[in-house]
Amino acid sequence: MPLSELTPDELTDLHARLTKDYDDLVARGLKLDLTRGKPASAQLDLSNELLTLPGEGEFRAADGTDCRNYGGLTGLPEIREIFAELLNVPVAQLLAGDNSSLSIMHDTLVWCLLKGPVGGSPWAGSPVKFICPVPGYDRHFALCEQYGIEMIPVPLGDHGPDLDAVRDLLADPSVKGMWVVPTYANPTGAVYDEAVARELVGMTAAAPDFRIFWDNAYAVHHLTDAESPALDVLGMAAEAGNPDRVFVFASTSKITFAGAGVSFFGGSPATIAWYQQHQSKRSIGPDKVNHLRHVRYLKDADGVRALMARHRALIAPKFAQVDAILTERLGGYDTATWTHPIGGYFISLDVADGTASRVVALAKAAGIAMTGAGAAFPYGKDPRDRNIRIAPTFPSPDDVAGAIEGLTTCVLLAATEQALAALPAPAAG
Amino acid sequence: MPLSELTPDELTDLHARLTKDYDDLVARGLKLDLTRGKPASAQLDLSNELLTLPGEGEFRAADGTDCRNYGGLTGLPEIREIFAELLNVPVAQLLAGDNSSLSIMHDTLVWCLLKGPVGGSPWAGSPVKFICPVPGYDRHFALCEQYGIEMIPVPLGDHGPDLDAVRDLLADPSVKGMWVVPTYANPTGAVYDEAVARELVGMTAAAPDFRIFWDNAYAVHHLTDAESPALDVLGMAAEAGNPDRVFVFASTSKITFAGAGVSFFGGSPATIAWYQQHQSKRSIGPDKVNHLRHVRYLKDADGVRALMARHRALIAPKFAQVDAILTERLGGYDTATWTHPIGGYFISLDVADGTASRVVALAKAAGIAMTGAGAAFPYGKDPRDRNIRIAPTFPSPDDVAGAIEGLTTCVLLAATEQALAALPAPAAG
Repeated sequence: MPLSELTPDELTDLHARLTKDYDDLVARGLKLDLTRGKPASAQLDLSNELLTLPGEGEFRAADGTDCRNYGGLTGLPEIREIFAELLNVPVAQLLAGDNSSLSIMHDTLVWCLLKGPVGGSPWAGSPVKFICPVPGYDRHFALCEQYGIEMIPVPLGDHGPDLDAVRDLLADPSVKGMWVVPTYANPTGAVYDEAVARELVGMTAAAPDFRIFWDNAYAVHHLTDAESPALDVLGMAAEAGNPDRVFVFASTSKITFAGAGVSFFGGSPATIAWYQQHQSKRSIGPDKVNHLRHVRYLKDADGVRALMARHRALIAPKFAQVDAILTERLGGYDTATWTHPIGGYFISLDVADGTASRVVALAKAAGIAMTGAGAAFPYGKDPRDRNIRIAPTFPSPDDVAGAIEGLTTCVLLAATEQALAALPAPAAG
Repeated sequence: MPLSELTPDELTDLHARLTKDYDDLVARGLKLDLTRGKPASAQLDLSNELLTLPGEGEFRAADGTDCRNYGGLTGLPEIREIFAELLNVPVAQLLAGDNSSLSIMHDTLVWCLLKGPVGGSPWAGSPVKFICPVPGYDRHFALCEQYGIEMIPVPLGDHGPDLDAVRDLLADPSVKGMWVVPTYANPTGAVYDEAVARELVGMTAAAPDFRIFWDNAYAVHHLTDAESPALDVLGMAAEAGNPDRVFVFASTSKITFAGAGVSFFGGSPATIAWYQQHQSKRSIGPDKVNHLRHVRYLKDADGVRALMARHRALIAPKFAQVDAILTERLGGYDTATWTHPIGGYFISLDVADGTASRVVALAKAAGIAMTGAGAAFPYGKDPRDRNIRIAPTFPSPDDVAGAIEGLTTCVLLAATEQALAALPAPAAG
């Protein structure tokens, strides 16, 4: 029964019931946190072998390199080989770094600003704009905001962004970049398909140094048997005559240890040379012992796949639980929609327009911490104030259930508040 | 017998003998490398416990933090405590990072350029100059060159740079920075004394956002019992009314594993807040498992001191050997001088003016790789072409001896070549 079909009296009754539900919720004194896409302890436990690796007397790479000493800017060849296969990037075009791919995105952006990308001059000093499919990843947007890059939102569908909108924007030579999370996008779970990818790498861009920041953070993070393989985006870009257009990023943060994994950077041969030239000024080399540790633990691409299956076994039930509760509690009301991701770390919930901030505030007052409303939009501004990101991986299954049940109460309460406020004022008595 | 006192015939004889020595040297087909300040295998072996740490099931910090997961921008408190004591920096003003302090220097410089330091506007877009005590560290200079920062050399003495020269330069508002390696400076071994440090932090600077990049890379790297303790440079700067003037850098690269250690950044409370604001855009946190690994291994500041004593036992003999060979082979000629460091990683050798490039080329042709002549000067240009950096730690004692013996032949050969060329031309026959 959609809220819009309720009579004023029915709406008033529903509001009263929800207010009581909400008061009961607050009285429970919950302390639940669904804010960040963090792995749960049980997921981290899967990789506890890393805590004693590479092992006694083990410090030599396959080529004899002493991993303990300085050097090796590319990262260990054997860890690059494993992820070259998984990311569908030639190993010569994939570098391994320290624990954070966000850091590589930052540095790449900074070098574009101060030095200019391959074939371009420094971006700093002139207006720079980035295309931002929305909803998207708040940390991408924070990087742009930090460096004064104007963000232009473009709607993201199930298989990629609105390509006509992207095409129009690329006519502006100050549009220098675009954020893409191609696989199981944060937060909607969208999967860019091959046709979309080919369009993006092939489109005419007024800026010859236009770059796609291709953050394949969830490349192997499947939640179902319908596994979306990584696209050969660098090959497509080369075929399209724009070999340098794409920067590829990835990491093991949500594969092994979130804070102590290995990051990766991929690009055209020219981009890899460019990156190394700049990186060589910044560092004498990444932590190769951590690379070796990961090689000894993961062994090969199949080792990663087997590990991801164990992650899936732990987190897919949490996603199913969220979906079941949302369906049960919200399904009857036509007031909210949500995504049904087949991979990644998030569910994107759209509540009644204009109520997301209220929902998050209500939840917070009831001890349920959600990512701030609007976080998935540039400048934190959701123009329809309707989107809420749900990150179900970190809490226990019981906590996820408790939080989502509580959240649905908040969603309905905010919607009925809004519907009541929209009723015509009663005739004067 | 100084070369200048030799008769032309004696000089010709000496040159002939040295040429023969050099030919013998080339014939030996050496392959020795004294280029970089890298720890030897035996030094890295001292810390092999790290290869199995933090240990089975060990991932909790003292405060209960799960080091495997995201977060913790400051770095683990317990590793900060250990190095706060050793670096003489309050723990609240010391952050722990990933494996490279050079990276922290890079990022700090980049944020000054793009965002401006505390109390300053962005440096990029206007001329920026840095004071560079010489000889100095080539990677510092490479950072400046990379970002178009003009470097102004100032002579470095045994206890710090020429302060009058520094004072004069600070009258220029475009002088925004200065590199300092305060303890056992690379490559001379100079130790900045307290009076010099007080002058540097207190001097009037035309640029209110002038910054000293205080790279205390060798704070605990003593070679004798005359240990130079780290100065409380942040306290001195605060007392002098310039609390934000100093950025402190350090790492365990030459304490534990050169490529897999922990880096540190120190500054005023305002600087630490500034750094964290910027770093929070770049990363969700450093590798805390590596911090925990180091805490379990090093235990406390005394653990570091004990480890450094074992390093000293391995490398002090190499330094003594270099000094002995230089004394034996060059002592009689008045053509070269060298430093007698009481800590750090280098010996700085000054050969006859105008011959350093020739010496390095001769050595290279004989299979002895030395750091390029001029490397210790901005833009790689030693105005007197006389300075050569000797890095004796990495090769075996036999290799160090072989390399330095060979080097002395090159030093004398180049000097006699020069002296012969300077003789008046013989009267026409």
